[in-house]
Amino acid sequence: MVQHASLPRNDAGIATALGVLKQQFGERFQTGQSIREQHGHTTTWIENQPPDAVVFAQSTEEVAEIVRICAEHRVPIIAYGTGTSLEGHVNAPAGGICVDLSQMDKVLEVNPGDLDCRVQPGVTREALNTHLRDQGLFFPIDPGANASLGGMTATNASGTNAVRYGTMKDNVLAVEAVMADGRVIRTGTRARKSSAGYDLTRLLVGSEGTLCMITEITLQLHGIPEAISSASCSFPSVDAACQTVISVIQYGLPVARIELLDDVMVKALNAYSKLDLPETPLLLLEFHGTEAGVVEQSEIFGALSEEHGGVGYAATSTTEDRNRLWQARHDAYWAMLQYRPGARGIATDVCVPISRLADCVTAAQARVAELGLIAPIVGHAGDGNFHVSPLVDMSNADEVEKAAGFISWLNDLAISMDGTCTGEHGIGQGKRPYLVKELGGATEIMRAIKVALDPQDILNPGKVI
Amino acid sequence: MVQHASLPRNDAGIATALGVLKQQFGERFQTGQSIREQHGHTTTWIENQPPDAVVFAQSTEEVAEIVRICAEHRVPIIAYGTGTSLEGHVNAPAGGICVDLSQMDKVLEVNPGDLDCRVQPGVTREALNTHLRDQGLFFPIDPGANASLGGMTATNASGTNAVRYGTMKDNVLAVEAVMADGRVIRTGTRARKSSAGYDLTRLLVGSEGTLCMITEITLQLHGIPEAISSASCSFPSVDAACQTVISVIQYGLPVARIELLDDVMVKALNAYSKLDLPETPLLLLEFHGTEAGVVEQSEIFGALSEEHGGVGYAATSTTEDRNRLWQARHDAYWAMLQYRPGARGIATDVCVPISRLADCVTAAQARVAELGLIAPIVGHAGDGNFHVSPLVDMSNADEVEKAAGFISWLNDLAISMDGTCTGEHGIGQGKRPYLVKELGGATEIMRAIKVALDPQDILNPGKVI
Repeated sequence: MVQHASLPRNDAGIATALGVLKQQFGERFQTGQSIREQHGHTTTWIENQPPDAVVFAQSTEEVAEIVRICAEHRVPIIAYGTGTSLEGHVNAPAGGICVDLSQMDKVLEVNPGDLDCRVQPGVTREALNTHLRDQGLFFPIDPGANASLGGMTATNASGTNAVRYGTMKDNVLAVEAVMADGRVIRTGTRARKSSAGYDLTRLLVGSEGTLCMITEITLQLHGIPEAISSASCSFPSVDAACQTVISVIQYGLPVARIELLDDVMVKALNAYSKLDLPETPLLLLEFHGTEAGVVEQSEIFGALSEEHGGVGYAATSTTEDRNRLWQARHDAYWAMLQYRPGARGIATDVCVPISRLADCVTAAQARVAELGLIAPIVGHAGDGNFHVSPLVDMSNADEVEKAAGFISWLNDLAISMDGTCTGEHGIGQGKRPYLVKELGGATEIMRAIKVALDPQDILNPGKVI
Repeated sequence: MVQHASLPRNDAGIATALGVLKQQFGERFQTGQSIREQHGHTTTWIENQPPDAVVFAQSTEEVAEIVRICAEHRVPIIAYGTGTSLEGHVNAPAGGICVDLSQMDKVLEVNPGDLDCRVQPGVTREALNTHLRDQGLFFPIDPGANASLGGMTATNASGTNAVRYGTMKDNVLAVEAVMADGRVIRTGTRARKSSAGYDLTRLLVGSEGTLCMITEITLQLHGIPEAISSASCSFPSVDAACQTVISVIQYGLPVARIELLDDVMVKALNAYSKLDLPETPLLLLEFHGTEAGVVEQSEIFGALSEEHGGVGYAATSTTEDRNRLWQARHDAYWAMLQYRPGARGIATDVCVPISRLADCVTAAQARVAELGLIAPIVGHAGDGNFHVSPLVDMSNADEVEKAAGFISWLNDLAISMDGTCTGEHGIGQGKRPYLVKELGGATEIMRAIKVALDPQDILNPGKVI
């Protein structure tokens, strides 16, 4: 496991806060070891650092009260949604209180005329979409996991359809947030655009619980498209697939999804999902629009892919086929794990200018081969964002070291290509050194903001900055 | 004229800084009264407060040097692009140095494969689009005026096609900025998305020169659409027009522009642009897409508008017709001024949830009538953003007072509808009281950020916060 250093603990303050919280929250205050460990959960190889207690909050007022208590005693406070973050975001390196927001799970308001809604942070994206379906609306951001919207906001999540619908940053209109001293603010209105002062909404989106606790989110929604169609297309090389993606973006084709899978990933999917896709680089597509529109998009894509050597281009004709294709894509993580049983899959998350995507993916494949690693690749190719996931035998120290070296090398490579070490997973504990490499002096400005808004460093300490 | 209070001047510091800057910048340092007044220019009724000197900077290093000199002597420093802002943004209530960035007018890099470019802040949007045209690319944000991209970034400008392409916030990938102590940072990379730390890019976009001086901007570009078509449609009432807009947005029709003009505005345009549009509320549309796509969009719009009583729906068939229609829309400001010769047009800028647009516009019209004002309305209806522009005889104190009261009333109305006092013009000097009404305690967080990043309050003091 990768260990991140513990930070100095304020044992006396923590003990006092625990006492106060226990009295106020009764059964909703928990200190059992397994529940604490579960709330320091991380889906990657970062070692668990459990909080001292978990409090299940049920309202903004309760969150504010918890923060005030923690502020008074200088105790760390960590927001928790579903625990699906990937960079140690919910670890407690200085101990403290984890605030579990999963019971704040109400959709507070849906305004179909304005295509917006207001939700509590514990609502998951699947629950929201179930709630919206009857009204012909949907919330597009899909990071794979059934994450909470609070967590998705805090990490600026995105996923397969960001190429068409953007990231959380593009779909959050406003948040209600509890600041480090317990005061509650609202960062915006329901207006679709605004130039009213500094953009606190987008400052807090992606702040990973280090600047505030998010207690409500106003989201932009979208109408369910009249027609949806899917397709897959195989390519002789990653380069050919990436050139096709560049053509699609330059053409302005409004693809809803354009996902890249490398040959290793296709092999893993074939085995796991009982498919018989050609085991060469593959693009999976989805088109949203009118009936005529998706046919046209599909035809244009067919022509563009042919120019770059695409073969076996096939549009799905039924909803079942489409669901099967995307279910397979969503099962990529499980397919990977089955591809090398017993191994742990370590997610990387670089994002580069699209013109460098083929170079970056190809270099990563070569490096993986050179190191003797096994590491399937899936990518949100339309954004230049891809995940190489070394499948690591954690009992093999040499292999662990090689994988760690590879991840470091890959982050540096992306940064050297004017890209980022994280397209959508965030910084957490794991990526802090790379943030400095990527943005240099700008991180000092981030630190100045952190100090201004959380002078005691009680909000999720040891993360981001 | 509306006067904003002067702030305390640091006369000794200003005198020292003037001496240093004069020596360093020679002919590019100017203190003549007319040039100073021109750089305190405001296109509305806010009184001119000229800076003590204007320096024409030619590089990031020069801007950083000017900021360091001003920081050393605690002298205000104000960025200037084209002077087309509307809320007193470039006024100098505490005196100080205006840095004119118009000579930093180079397009530094265009990456057609990635649909992005890097520009200096003095490049105007028209100059950029001329530069890009041969490559089949364009930059969509169009606030009307041929503003500089630095100014557009600083105020988070948008305009007629934000409904399709978003605002500056959605199209700026990164900025290079000089901070209040003269250090230079870069806030992002060319990756299309990122979760790398706090979103400084979007914090600085719209910060109106109060947090930094923007010295370079990396912009997202778009492919020029294969086909563009335009149309106009008249309606029996503002409500019918707004209901059509709501249907369009709910349908997910990807209109590139959907502009509302009220009957007064149509009358003014008919007179100025020699048109013969029915003098009832009007929507002007533009569709971007494939040849078949724009035909389909136009047909769908026709059907939706008919359901709400739209009449005289006519698509333009030639580029000339289309240009004539949009030229008329762009000439709205001049048409207004000619509609009441000698009057001054005072822009308002509220933005409300679309479901409230008809209510808000109709209430504004009634209030205008009640007060005996003349005030045409144009609106970016797809965003819920509209501009009522009282045409004011500035020699009539009673009318000036009525107009001021109307503007205040309108801002309050929009805020009461969960909207904003400014969709795209920004806060500047004029909207500061409304920012507090709109966002309450969140403005204290803005102030904490301002104090952290500009502790001496030298960057554009007296604006925003």
